[in-house]
Amino acid sequence: MKPIKAGLLGFGTIGTGVIKVIQNNAAVIEQRLGRSIQLARVVDLDITTDRGVALETGVLSDDAQGLLNDPEIDVVIELIGGYEPARTFVLQALNNHKHVVTANKALLALHGEELLRAADDNGVTLMFEAAVAGGIPILASIRENLCANQFSGVYGILNGTCNYILTRMTDNEEDFASVLGDAQKLGYAESDPTFDIEGIDTAHKLSILVSMCFGTWIDFDQIYTEGITRISALDIEFASQLGYQVKLLAIGKLDNGSIEARVHPTMVRNNYPMADVSGVFNAIRLNGDFVGPVLLHGGGAGMEATASAVMGDVMHIARSITSGANTFAPSLGYTPVAITRLPVKAMDDLVGRYYLRFIVEDSPGVLAKISTILGDFGISINSMIQPDEMFESDVEGILPIVMMTHEAREKNVRQALEKIEALPIIKEQCLLIRIEDKLD
Amino acid sequence: MKPIKAGLLGFGTIGTGVIKVIQNNAAVIEQRLGRSIQLARVVDLDITTDRGVALETGVLSDDAQGLLNDPEIDVVIELIGGYEPARTFVLQALNNHKHVVTANKALLALHGEELLRAADDNGVTLMFEAAVAGGIPILASIRENLCANQFSGVYGILNGTCNYILTRMTDNEEDFASVLGDAQKLGYAESDPTFDIEGIDTAHKLSILVSMCFGTWIDFDQIYTEGITRISALDIEFASQLGYQVKLLAIGKLDNGSIEARVHPTMVRNNYPMADVSGVFNAIRLNGDFVGPVLLHGGGAGMEATASAVMGDVMHIARSITSGANTFAPSLGYTPVAITRLPVKAMDDLVGRYYLRFIVEDSPGVLAKISTILGDFGISINSMIQPDEMFESDVEGILPIVMMTHEAREKNVRQALEKIEALPIIKEQCLLIRIEDKLD
Repeated sequence: MKPIKAGLLGFGTIGTGVIKVIQNNAAVIEQRLGRSIQLARVVDLDITTDRGVALETGVLSDDAQGLLNDPEIDVVIELIGGYEPARTFVLQALNNHKHVVTANKALLALHGEELLRAADDNGVTLMFEAAVAGGIPILASIRENLCANQFSGVYGILNGTCNYILTRMTDNEEDFASVLGDAQKLGYAESDPTFDIEGIDTAHKLSILVSMCFGTWIDFDQIYTEGITRISALDIEFASQLGYQVKLLAIGKLDNGSIEARVHPTMVRNNYPMADVSGVFNAIRLNGDFVGPVLLHGGGAGMEATASAVMGDVMHIARSITSGANTFAPSLGYTPVAITRLPVKAMDDLVGRYYLRFIVEDSPGVLAKISTILGDFGISINSMIQPDEMFESDVEGILPIVMMTHEAREKNVRQALEKIEALPIIKEQCLLIRIEDKLD
Repeated sequence: MKPIKAGLLGFGTIGTGVIKVIQNNAAVIEQRLGRSIQLARVVDLDITTDRGVALETGVLSDDAQGLLNDPEIDVVIELIGGYEPARTFVLQALNNHKHVVTANKALLALHGEELLRAADDNGVTLMFEAAVAGGIPILASIRENLCANQFSGVYGILNGTCNYILTRMTDNEEDFASVLGDAQKLGYAESDPTFDIEGIDTAHKLSILVSMCFGTWIDFDQIYTEGITRISALDIEFASQLGYQVKLLAIGKLDNGSIEARVHPTMVRNNYPMADVSGVFNAIRLNGDFVGPVLLHGGGAGMEATASAVMGDVMHIARSITSGANTFAPSLGYTPVAITRLPVKAMDDLVGRYYLRFIVEDSPGVLAKISTILGDFGISINSMIQPDEMFESDVEGILPIVMMTHEAREKNVRQALEKIEALPIIKEQCLLIRIEDKLD
């Protein structure tokens, strides 16, 4: 049987990984598919740098249009990243009736609806397993194996940079800034880490998970997104005393016909496997009405794990072509006509428990002032820590007060904090961390 | 589009779960498939007991042949269990060009090769996600999403009964026999628990994993199988002191062209997520050359989780039929012609570390006698515990000695133990637990 011909756009780190898989595992790929995958064209602006992999003569060029218009190419692998020209190229490939595999979560989060419609209109498949949690087979599991379930919630640790930083802060009581610096030196964080540490990358991935779990389109700006930059070693230490770990969690829930979609630092109970996910690993916990909770854990990034996911998609498409199916399963796991646009719950309407940390003047009556305002907004306190000895400050006469609330409405909590922050006894902006006790 | 028609053989616990999925989640199933699944026939010997689900008139009967020969039925779901008549019915269904979904690991472990050949000969698909680790999407992940990898190892906690017993023994320092009795009362263990506690059920599942990971047929009796009945609360306590958990582990490895396939109590390091899998949960750790380690964790048994997996397979087949693929991916993930029969390494040739527990006479020179024999067989000791205060015995004058070895060959360890057991100072059969430090 003649090989499936793939064209690769973007010869960077992941692209190099994909070429390595195709070359190193050619035998096992053919044993599994009954045919081989041939990398017919590789396109990049830079065609001179040595990436440590050998390509046949004539394969590498800077001619994207040549690739996109080559009638021999069955599958286009888009690993350029970013919005343009990736979006234009993917649309061109789909309109030329080529299947497309991409790892580009930013592109999907912002233009997914347009791209998936184009794939559907042209009777081809757009796949993106590598866009969420690298090598972990989460999208395929949602789409194809757990698909008899109605999901109630999806919870993800989806950004290795943030999880590495939070793990180091937890294990060594280090400060955010110093760990970030180290992570940059070690290559675990970009020189501009904004997308990672502000939660934007995690939110891109959550938008894909929410669409697949609940069969809905969601606009990227409907996802509440808060990063980890305000978390201190002190908060992590308090959380630990209270039996929790602090994780940057992507949270998607279906609640009575509306969606919750949010990314923020979250306190997760120590006895959940999710709390043990450490370093650059990723994990996703899914709850289905029949399967119950399922956790998938593995390498969320890096050349090799991501290339594994890209090639899993390419092989899926190869099987579709071989079997005559052309398109086997819809990309989001729902038939396009079934995908709706469910309402997204406003953050103000969120009901949950909260960790609140105040930095206050060390003077009598402080606690009374804070708790009076909280009480005025109907927020009751579950537990409180007011440690002297744990807190080392450069400034004399200030100390932290930490509270865990009972269930409260987010709007009330925010209004109360605004009022508390106006008090002269408050010496720093208050910190709020949301608590997820159940993950169901 | 007209519905896919399924026929269910076996209206027991799992069968009832499958009916519940089809009934409760009809809407989401249709949104995902673009067509519905209709349960056209349900067959059981017992057609009178109320299982708490309502079936349309005429659906339930005791007529297996009517179901197997009904030309309207696309997919047969076999949930009878055991070898016969399940084997005959599955073969008949396949020969009648019907796709088959089964949860029957015993049948697959002993007759898988015959059944998969019949499926292939008839151009239909035989699927069995529910046979391994219940609701966890492990087989689909190996077959379809991680399929660009060459796997080096697969490690599973695959039997909820054993893991429940070992977890209770660990958490509460209880004895095997008393926990087993409780597990039986709670419905976590069968009244005849042999298949579970002797590791046979785990070995059935391992045979499927090994075939799928490495593209090989394996005869069931080539799998070394040892249960958990000899593990004592004392061993678990010692393991814990040494930084390990005791788990009944299914282990499959590909090493230089030959296979390791074994099921036995295993000491796993505390810092591996595998060590944290508790109670009736299952987990599988896979190592692929590109993806690295991936862990999947979830409900390994029970009506609902197992029904989720069965229906995932039914929906996969429905997609095959809808897309015109008929068979999409080969059941084991390898094309039938590519499946070989790799040699299986003899246990004698295993090289690893061992935990050895001796119950000895409390007299001088005991340690010298044991270590002399170990030394004669080239086995060196990494650490030793000879606790007085921990050990409460009804018998005066005996005590345990526990040793962890450096790497040694299994054959040498067994020969040394045989010789040690012949010493008059030895008061009980020695216990050996294999240690897996790396899981790679």
